[in-house]
Order: sequence, then structure tokens, then C-alpha cells
Amino acid sequence: MKAYSQLSKEKLLALKSDLEKQFEDVKAKGLKLDMSRGKPSKAQLDLSNGLMDILNSKVNLVSSDGVDCRNYGILDGISDARKLLADMSEVPERNILIYGNSSLNVMFDTVARAMTHGIMGSTPWCKLDKVKFLCPVPGYDRHFAITEFFGIEMINVPLLETGPDMDMVEKLVSEDEAVKGIWCVPKYANPTGISYSDETVRRFAHLKPAAKDFRIFWDNAYSIHHLYDDKRDVILELLNECVKAGNPDMVLKFISTSKVSFPGSGIAALAASEANLADAKRYMKFQTIGHDKLNQLRHVRYFKDMQGMYNHMRKHADILRPKFEKVLEVLDKELGGLGIGTWTKPLGGYFISFDSMDGCAKAIVAKAKEAGLVMTGAGATFPYGKDPHDSNIRIAPSFPTVEELEVAAQIFVLSVKLVSIDKLLNA
Amino acid sequence: MKAYSQLSKEKLLALKSDLEKQFEDVKAKGLKLDMSRGKPSKAQLDLSNGLMDILNSKVNLVSSDGVDCRNYGILDGISDARKLLADMSEVPERNILIYGNSSLNVMFDTVARAMTHGIMGSTPWCKLDKVKFLCPVPGYDRHFAITEFFGIEMINVPLLETGPDMDMVEKLVSEDEAVKGIWCVPKYANPTGISYSDETVRRFAHLKPAAKDFRIFWDNAYSIHHLYDDKRDVILELLNECVKAGNPDMVLKFISTSKVSFPGSGIAALAASEANLADAKRYMKFQTIGHDKLNQLRHVRYFKDMQGMYNHMRKHADILRPKFEKVLEVLDKELGGLGIGTWTKPLGGYFISFDSMDGCAKAIVAKAKEAGLVMTGAGATFPYGKDPHDSNIRIAPSFPTVEELEVAAQIFVLSVKLVSIDKLLNA
Repeated sequence: MKAYSQLSKEKLLALKSDLEKQFEDVKAKGLKLDMSRGKPSKAQLDLSNGLMDILNSKVNLVSSDGVDCRNYGILDGISDARKLLADMSEVPERNILIYGNSSLNVMFDTVARAMTHGIMGSTPWCKLDKVKFLCPVPGYDRHFAITEFFGIEMINVPLLETGPDMDMVEKLVSEDEAVKGIWCVPKYANPTGISYSDETVRRFAHLKPAAKDFRIFWDNAYSIHHLYDDKRDVILELLNECVKAGNPDMVLKFISTSKVSFPGSGIAALAASEANLADAKRYMKFQTIGHDKLNQLRHVRYFKDMQGMYNHMRKHADILRPKFEKVLEVLDKELGGLGIGTWTKPLGGYFISFDSMDGCAKAIVAKAKEAGLVMTGAGATFPYGKDPHDSNIRIAPSFPTVEELEVAAQIFVLSVKLVSIDKLLNA
Repeated sequence: MKAYSQLSKEKLLALKSDLEKQFEDVKAKGLKLDMSRGKPSKAQLDLSNGLMDILNSKVNLVSSDGVDCRNYGILDGISDARKLLADMSEVPERNILIYGNSSLNVMFDTVARAMTHGIMGSTPWCKLDKVKFLCPVPGYDRHFAITEFFGIEMINVPLLETGPDMDMVEKLVSEDEAVKGIWCVPKYANPTGISYSDETVRRFAHLKPAAKDFRIFWDNAYSIHHLYDDKRDVILELLNECVKAGNPDMVLKFISTSKVSFPGSGIAALAASEANLADAKRYMKFQTIGHDKLNQLRHVRYFKDMQGMYNHMRKHADILRPKFEKVLEVLDKELGGLGIGTWTKPLGGYFISFDSMDGCAKAIVAKAKEAGLVMTGAGATFPYGKDPHDSNIRIAPSFPTVEELEVAAQIFVLSVKLVSIDKLLNA
């Protein structure tokens, strides 16, 4: 394929005319397709239906540590759930605290807590003139929405192949006491799918923050969400690295089973130093008498241990893999060599990240919508919804079927081509 | 029975010696009894075991409004759950917002939200020099703990037979802009078991607060928790009264199924004006993608409607009634006419409230503990744990068996008698 930028104006116009016809044909079908959110598909949900059978009126509803899971109490979570989520988080059991159904809720509450009560005795952030967070970009819109909601200033940090630009992170964190946190999705990042290198993790562990209440918000949302058995990203465990570096309190790790069992009906946890967990519990003990222990028991009895969870995740991968491959196949075939976009080829997670030519992302998403394809809003992967290059688009292939994805990907590449040609013609 | 205050010193000393022997006999048994927390008993929990069978891999997990309850989404709760909790709250469906597993969590988050974001556009409370809450006393320790945790000044308001002293409430609320809320348990109050009179509810609805972000925190924890079929408290529905009085936004009602189905694994809701719910959702939408819809579905399919819930509550009452009656029987028999204590005889809820002679409550609770009986800490029913008269003790008869309660009540009355005699001897 010849790069579009090498084509003459006449060739581009001819191409455009041809592509417009194709586009009108697809548009005429009146399709409704959605590649916008990282939702598991029905087939994936079906994998966990057995969870609904595990607890019933004929089985004992007492946990192995003797807790009647039907009654009040046990703020930390039942012991078996603590063990399972600790294993999933790769930390000792003493470093885990079980929450409710959503790790997003844990992150939100952690920021809310810092606002009103500070972190481990620090000044409440709401009493400070300025609080800043570093935001590796592109990143997860719901992270950025939390910090924006609390009036925290967000600073973009480029996300490289190896993780956030650590030169920039080290400089900002060590020089500015207002920098209190950084949002990270260290494995199969949302949306690029990259995983942080060992060096990046070690540099995180060795940060020398100006603010003693600086915390790394480590959202390990896709820790076991591999697409392949034989090609997997592995990342260093940050809490342990922080302990070795003499910074045991610097990291807060968030995890959940939302994309393992059922989104909305899973269990979430915070993994951190005992001092951080004690601080979290000082807040939580006023907030609740305890989370849903029956759901904890349900998960523990269903998955049993990490081997059970790994086996389960292989079934998810079997469903997700062909979807990623289908989208990538269309992107490769239709856009390869055209020089009008680049995209990631992740080994896990829920997203493919696409970068168009500068200034085209919004127009591409709008174009796709004309033909009935909903994409994540352009800009969503940046703080304040502002992509400075207007180039990044998050592709979420999990929810549609492979057949739908084939059509959706065709609409997408047509949209990319048409918008890119316009861009080149108007350059 | 002759009142203790009428007895001579000699008679009191003789009585004391006799009671001390009885006390030592009980103490020697090395009992472990607990009348401290309002926890349902095992027999009550067994009533809801069928909840565990309702959802299984063979039934449809789609709600009647077409939502796959296994996946992400639906911030407000599924329609059937909204309807059930709206009925339980006696409000239209448009006035209900479903939360997670705990109404305490909803109340906490409501205060947290007001601290950082204000209420319906008001100044965030954390930006104000002073925020005050009115606290009808005796009341619920966990309410007071929330406001104390957020540094809110608490003002005691006497709880009368008809509800809070409304003369005092009206005066404080209308004169002081720093007064932002009042904690209420309007039905079968914790701990006195009284229910607010119609006049009290109407006076609440007609309050003219100095602060436009003043809210009545109406914790309807025991709305359907009657002990008798033929003797029941009925209270006016406050939201409707507020609407009629032109104050639709003044009340926030909290409810949950914690003591209907399983504590910790129930569903909670906020009932309020649409403007208040929109305000709550502006916060919630950053906090979570949605609560546990499978648990909502489980409850809806199990209880079906309010008739289902009422029938279920009758079974709870059948278990609870003999317990309340046993404790009251011992109190009547052993303390009646002695003039050393008064107690309430509630028709519902989870508590009996006992008032000793001034300055005796702490000593009574300590004495009971000597013999292995744990009571709610004296003072817990007051803000800051400070009962100005040191007289109120909350009795929670729900968890122990009737047989255990008989012994526990005996230890309690022995403790009351011994401490009261000491008080009279030292007067």
C-alpha cells in the first residue's frame, strides 16, 4: 500500500469518491454497533453463571474462619476472600482490605477520604490551595473524572511503550509538593494495552516525593486478563518493590473481580501497607458495618484459589482473543502502510488504542456514528476530555460478536480513511 | 415493692449483701452473654435462606425492564428494585435511588458529599467555619460517629414520647445557619423504640431553616419492623408532608433491607425529591458504574412486593416478640416499683431503652460485664459518648436466645440493683 501522503490530489479525490460510495452503502444498512465501553459480552457473562448456584439454602453459609456470612460485621472481609484477593494482588494477606462491588468506588472513596481527612495524618486536601495529580495519557476516563470532580488539577504525562515518562514523573513528584498522586493502569493499560517495564516499576518504587502524602494509584484492573497462554505480559509487583526501596506506604493498589466474574456483582479490594490499610479502615469503620460477605463467600467457593481463577480467565481469553484478532486483522489489512494511523496490539486487557493523524479523532468518531457505530468519545482518554493532538481513539472490542466487530471495524477504517483524505486535501 | 429510696440504710446494706451473693453465684458460672448490638439472631437469618435459591444458573438473570443484571450499568437500580424500595419507603418510584448493601453507607456518603461538594449547589461544608447537627438523644451511636468524624458539632435535643423536642428544633433550625441537619429515627427509634407523632412529623415538614442546605436525615431503619400484628405504630410519611408544606427538598430518607433479609447483603436506598436525587447522582456517577444488580434482582424475585415483605416481617416478629417480652417481664418483675430505673416498652424495632438513676449507667454496664454480660457501652447513645446524666443504657434483645436473655436480664437487674444501692448509700 502506498501512503496517502504520497498520493496526488487527483488520486485522493478519486479514492474519496469510491470510499464515500462504500460508506453510503454501509450507512444505508441502518446498523447499530457499539465499540465504546469495556463491557464483557453475554458469552463471557455466561461463563460465571455457576456462581449463582454455589450458595443455596442447603449449603453452610459460614466461612472457613467461622463467620456466619449472613449477619453483620467483619469490616476487613472474610479470611478466605482476603486470601484470594491477596493472591490475585500478589501481596501477603496482611496487606489486603476487602471492599464492596467496585474498585472504582474504592478509588473514589480514597480520594474523597484524602479530601476530608488527608492521608495518614496529612492535611486534608480540601484545606490546601492546590492539589495535583499526574495523568499518564492516554488513560482511563473514569480516573480523570474522579480527580476533576474533586477539583484536583491534572497534569498530562506521556505514556510510553515502557509506561509513563519516568523522567517527567520523577521531576514533577520530587519538585512539587502539590503533586499528591498519579493514576496508573500498569498492566494492559487502558486504552493502550501496554504494560510497565521492570525499570519503570523500580523507578516508581524509588520516587522521592516532595509530598509525604503522595500516593501511586495503581489500578491493577487487568492483572490476570491475558489474551494468550504463550504470550503474556508480566510486571513487577510494586508494593514489594516499594518495601525494598524503603517506601512501603507510597502505593495503593486497586483490584476487583469485575471482569472475572460479574461486573457490578464482584468483589473489590485495596492492597497496601498495613499503615495505609489502617488509615483506610479509620474511615471505613464509620462508613459501613461491613461489605457483602455472602458475595465474598460465593466468589471464594466458586473460584477456590488462583488456579481456579486462571482457568476461568482462559475461558474469557478464548472468547476475547478472536475479537481482538478480528479488529486487528481489519486494521492491518485496510490501514497498513497508509500512514494515516497507528494502533496497539495488546496481549491482554480490554482495549486497542488507535492514533489517527493529528486533528482527526473527533471527526472519525463523528463519521463512524453516522453509519451507526458508537465509539468512545474522542478526547475521553485525556484529562478534561482534551486530547491536545485530537488523535487518540479507544477501541473496545469485547462486547460485540466477531461478526458485528468485522462490520464495525470496516465502518471504522472507512471513517479513518475519509477523514484522513479530507485532512490531506485541506492541508 | 417498696422504692429503694424509702429503705433505711440497714435494710439497704442487708439487701446488698444478699444481692452480692446472688451476683457471685451467677458470676461463678463464667457466662458469655451479649445484649450489645442490634443483630438478628441465627433463627431470623434462617428465615431468608430461600434468598440463596432464587437466582441460579437455570433462571433468567434479566430484570423485567430488560437489563442483564450480570453486566455493568444502571446507576439508579433496576426498575423492580426501585419499585419495591419505593413502596417500602412509601414514596413514588421517581423519588427512589437504589444504593449498595448498607443505608449507613448512604448516610455517610451523603455527609461526605456535603463536605466536599455541598448540597444542591450550596457551599461545601468543609469550606465553612462551623457546621452543626441536631441530635435527638438518646439516639444511634453510628449516626453520631459519622458527624463527629467529619468535625460537625453536635447539639443534643431531648427525645420525648412524641419525638424530638420540636420547640427546640424549630428554634435552633430557624435561628442558626450553621445547623445543617438533624439525625432522626422516626419509627421505633434507636434506642427508645418511640415513634414520632403526626404533629411532630408535620412540624418537621413546616420547618423554616436558616440554612437552605439544611436537611432532615430521616433514617427509617425500622419502618416495617413491628413486634405485634394488632399493636403497631404508624407514622406520617414525611416527604409527602414536606411537599405539601412547600419544602420538598428538606428531607433525605434512608432505608434498607438489612434487617429484612440479610445484614450486609441487603439493598439500601435513598428516598427524596427528584432534585435531591439528581444531586446525589451527580456524585454517585463518578463513584461507581452501578451497584449489585444481581442482589437487587434476588430481593425482588424473593419478596415480589410489599405483601411478601410484610409476611416475611411477621416471621421475624414471631422470633423477636418473645425476646422483648422476656426482658420486659424480668424488668417488670425485678425492678417494678423500686424507683431505680425506667424503661421503654416498644412495639417494634430492635431495642429497649433503660434509664437508671443519674450517674449509674457506666457502673451498671461495668458490673454486668463482671458477670460476663456485654451491654452497649453507657454513653454510646449520646454524641461524643457523653451521657450528661450517665443514665441511659441500650438493651438489644435480638441476638441471644430467650433462655440466654432470661439469664442476661437477671444479671442486668442484679447489676442495676447493686449499683443503685451503692449510689443511695453514698448519697
